[in-house]
Amino acid sequence: MKKKILLYDTTLRDGGQAEGVAFSLPDKLRIADRLDRIGIQYIEGGWPGSNPKDMAFFREIRNYPLKQARVVAFGSTRRAGVSVEKDGNVISLLGAGTPAIAVFGKSWLLHVTDVLRVAPRTNLEMISDTVGYLKKKGKELIYDAEHFFDGYKDDAEYALASLLAAAEAGAEFLVLCDTNGGCLPEEIYRITKLVSERFGTPLGIHTHDDGGLATANTLAAVRAGVVMVQGTINGYGERTGNANLCTIVPNLVLKMDLPALTRPRLRKLEDLSRFVDEMANITPNPRAPFVGQSAFAHKGGMHVDAVRKNPRSFEHIDPAQVGNRRRVLVSELSGKSNVILKAIEFGVDLDKETPETARVLAELKRLGEEGYDFEGADASFRILLQKAMGKHKDFFKLEGFRVIVEKRQDQPPVSEATIKIKVGEKSELSAGEGDGPVNALDNALRKVLLRFYPEIGQVHLADFKVRDLDAAAGTAAKVRVLIQSRDREDIWDTVGVSQNIIEASWQALVDSVDYKLLKRGKQGKKK
Amino acid sequence: MKKKILLYDTTLRDGGQAEGVAFSLPDKLRIADRLDRIGIQYIEGGWPGSNPKDMAFFREIRNYPLKQARVVAFGSTRRAGVSVEKDGNVISLLGAGTPAIAVFGKSWLLHVTDVLRVAPRTNLEMISDTVGYLKKKGKELIYDAEHFFDGYKDDAEYALASLLAAAEAGAEFLVLCDTNGGCLPEEIYRITKLVSERFGTPLGIHTHDDGGLATANTLAAVRAGVVMVQGTINGYGERTGNANLCTIVPNLVLKMDLPALTRPRLRKLEDLSRFVDEMANITPNPRAPFVGQSAFAHKGGMHVDAVRKNPRSFEHIDPAQVGNRRRVLVSELSGKSNVILKAIEFGVDLDKETPETARVLAELKRLGEEGYDFEGADASFRILLQKAMGKHKDFFKLEGFRVIVEKRQDQPPVSEATIKIKVGEKSELSAGEGDGPVNALDNALRKVLLRFYPEIGQVHLADFKVRDLDAAAGTAAKVRVLIQSRDREDIWDTVGVSQNIIEASWQALVDSVDYKLLKRGKQGKKK
Repeated sequence: MKKKILLYDTTLRDGGQAEGVAFSLPDKLRIADRLDRIGIQYIEGGWPGSNPKDMAFFREIRNYPLKQARVVAFGSTRRAGVSVEKDGNVISLLGAGTPAIAVFGKSWLLHVTDVLRVAPRTNLEMISDTVGYLKKKGKELIYDAEHFFDGYKDDAEYALASLLAAAEAGAEFLVLCDTNGGCLPEEIYRITKLVSERFGTPLGIHTHDDGGLATANTLAAVRAGVVMVQGTINGYGERTGNANLCTIVPNLVLKMDLPALTRPRLRKLEDLSRFVDEMANITPNPRAPFVGQSAFAHKGGMHVDAVRKNPRSFEHIDPAQVGNRRRVLVSELSGKSNVILKAIEFGVDLDKETPETARVLAELKRLGEEGYDFEGADASFRILLQKAMGKHKDFFKLEGFRVIVEKRQDQPPVSEATIKIKVGEKSELSAGEGDGPVNALDNALRKVLLRFYPEIGQVHLADFKVRDLDAAAGTAAKVRVLIQSRDREDIWDTVGVSQNIIEASWQALVDSVDYKLLKRGKQGKKK
Repeated sequence: MKKKILLYDTTLRDGGQAEGVAFSLPDKLRIADRLDRIGIQYIEGGWPGSNPKDMAFFREIRNYPLKQARVVAFGSTRRAGVSVEKDGNVISLLGAGTPAIAVFGKSWLLHVTDVLRVAPRTNLEMISDTVGYLKKKGKELIYDAEHFFDGYKDDAEYALASLLAAAEAGAEFLVLCDTNGGCLPEEIYRITKLVSERFGTPLGIHTHDDGGLATANTLAAVRAGVVMVQGTINGYGERTGNANLCTIVPNLVLKMDLPALTRPRLRKLEDLSRFVDEMANITPNPRAPFVGQSAFAHKGGMHVDAVRKNPRSFEHIDPAQVGNRRRVLVSELSGKSNVILKAIEFGVDLDKETPETARVLAELKRLGEEGYDFEGADASFRILLQKAMGKHKDFFKLEGFRVIVEKRQDQPPVSEATIKIKVGEKSELSAGEGDGPVNALDNALRKVLLRFYPEIGQVHLADFKVRDLDAAAGTAAKVRVLIQSRDREDIWDTVGVSQNIIEASWQALVDSVDYKLLKRGKQGKKK
């Protein structure tokens, strides 16, 4: 078959409806640019009639030299009792100045009578008027049949009549929406198939994940004949989210052999997923299919063994096809194979018989029980290896530190740290301030270490994460701090655990410094 | 049709393979107890041959009075070249003392030749011997055909021969596994259908979510004839996870009308999901279908409006059917409807025309830009309402506080706080210590407030969460602190944001105290 699938992204519109997601205008522009570059054909930028931020986006995006994507403005059919050319929403849609417009209308009688509260016939006229008017203005017109499947199951004749109104008024695409996300794949397939047999207009699909079936429902619609697939990056969207393009596109390309994206562009998918999470300030879902950090992570000792023999044994695709990579995890449940493979990543030779391997395993187990987790802290694992091999060297000794946070009335608080360390026989004292206590301590530590180790000047903290480990104990709970550091060549991650956030941060800072000093003279060696 | 579906949970075994998941022995026992109580028929407790912790579980669980569930021990077929009664793994399986045993064997030639490295015929003998021997020992025998679908697609005849070996040796169930999680629903349906026509033995299904299709694949297998559904609570599992029973069971019961659980028990599902997340120390996925915190959360102003008119308009099921609830979100993107509905939850009457509504919206917008998020902090929103209505009263004034964390050499650090507040004309100074700086500050604040407001003695911190808002800035990034407080009647959540974790925690602590003092005299009013 090999039909061409058109990808329609609504991250900037429907995605912004997700709990915890809010894009700034610069975010939206940068995301649009990335969607264009990977080859998404339609970018729905927002709802100009509902939101001034969205209108600003449409103004700005005109100056962006997009390579191939068409920008789409989204809005509803005209209101009842208002002529289409005077309807505020329709005016805003035209004001957006996009080449394409998506108009949604009601297909479900329940919505017509209970939400819009108009006569069934009036709703059909609203659809027909709005589509017809915008077509006459020269727009490419995508008609979103909201709640189409629920509407069809409730009153098939009316749902089809609403589609017909849009098709006859000139819509270029009829998009069938499972707006409430509650349909089963076999329903989607059956109903879409029937519509595709009745209508000559190209069809699209728009699903939500309320039943955990948005991906399957989208693929079922593609099998039944749709050519346009709507979704969002990382599945952002109202409630449980929209169809996730980062899951659907690899399935289309790699499993169904439909050229939705070219293979070289598909390799940029993991990058795009991370980028959009960063813009939205959402912690990436490690378990996301294809692009998640755990998607090709192997923990069970037997699996690690098998993957070493043949990756296909426990990987459904080559992770590089979507820009992801294989990871071997070490934890207190690890077998010796994991530890050995992980040590090899660092250029350290261990085998199953050496006592160091058993020592590392025992130490991993003990620390695991205290709440340490080395799965995201490779550099701390490297230091642990060093200690287990009896090769660890203290680059400095802590004499003591003191961190003070002081607040007066409504003023912002002041954070200061003093620290005293000893290198060889020489003691040095230093002080630092910062935006918060950890920042102050970090600054003081760097200042004092610089006197002994000038290369510390190249190190920057790139990321700082805090996680509480025991919710039930309130502020006395343990926290795990993960610190990411970088210098000119490398990025590395370290971990600390304590009931005291300062102590946990301190441990991670010390591991970070140790790792930096350990890798001296090994420049170019990738962690 | 209304066939009975048997639920088989492997949270304790396959779930423990997930990145970041590790259960202690008491965790495992408590989870087993809850699985039994909700009505799961089979509980796979672990792999006794691979892990001493798992063996301890099987020893302990015998003393647990389970109501109905059968405990299952999991393990592989005997090794090549070892007689079954002398195989260590088989001996451990019997040693577990469970009524049922799950044995997995290889159906995919690739695994036989590349991983096991034995002759195809030898593998069939290993299956047959192991199943036959354990059957003779009186066990209920569940045969897991690992990689069955990949094996079938590669060499159908061999895959079927491996099933036949298990069936003829007496297996009670043949479980078809999509171990690598890469199959499409139509493949699962077609192959399962064919097997169900060839074999009289009842079938089961075991899927993984690598393609984002574990739910659809499980449902497809049920349509094709399987009676046993394997999965984990919250979908924990290696890589992207196993089939998620919290998604699948509501689909079976509510969408396919198959009595996998009774309706009253289904109402406990959200509870079970939260409980298992808590045991695993995993932050609940807010976007999880059916049981997630956002699953019935409405943010878009138009959706909120429609749900107010008729919940079915944007909800695929009644959330109470799975023990979940509807939530209205307020954010800087909120419309007036959201603010008004949220205010009503607190018993505050606003309408679209009152200036307070506009003030609340403006304040939400300003704070939203600074990183505040009231979606998880209802009590802080309540205080904000109070301020916007000009009704807020300062219960105390901060004169100042000082928090000190001090560490000497390898000793654990000491945290102390002093605080001075003013109530009316009276100033009071107090000091507190704690496991960390926030805990010390919290203790000092409580101590000094108790002198003025004895009811503060009833308040406990129930949860403390930290989230960094701007990963790129290292330790100078902003953090958002969410604090959950409880007294005898209520639980409430408050928020603070700052570059300084102490300041952010302070804001959330102040809101918590304000909320407690505000709700005096309104006892019994649920937030």
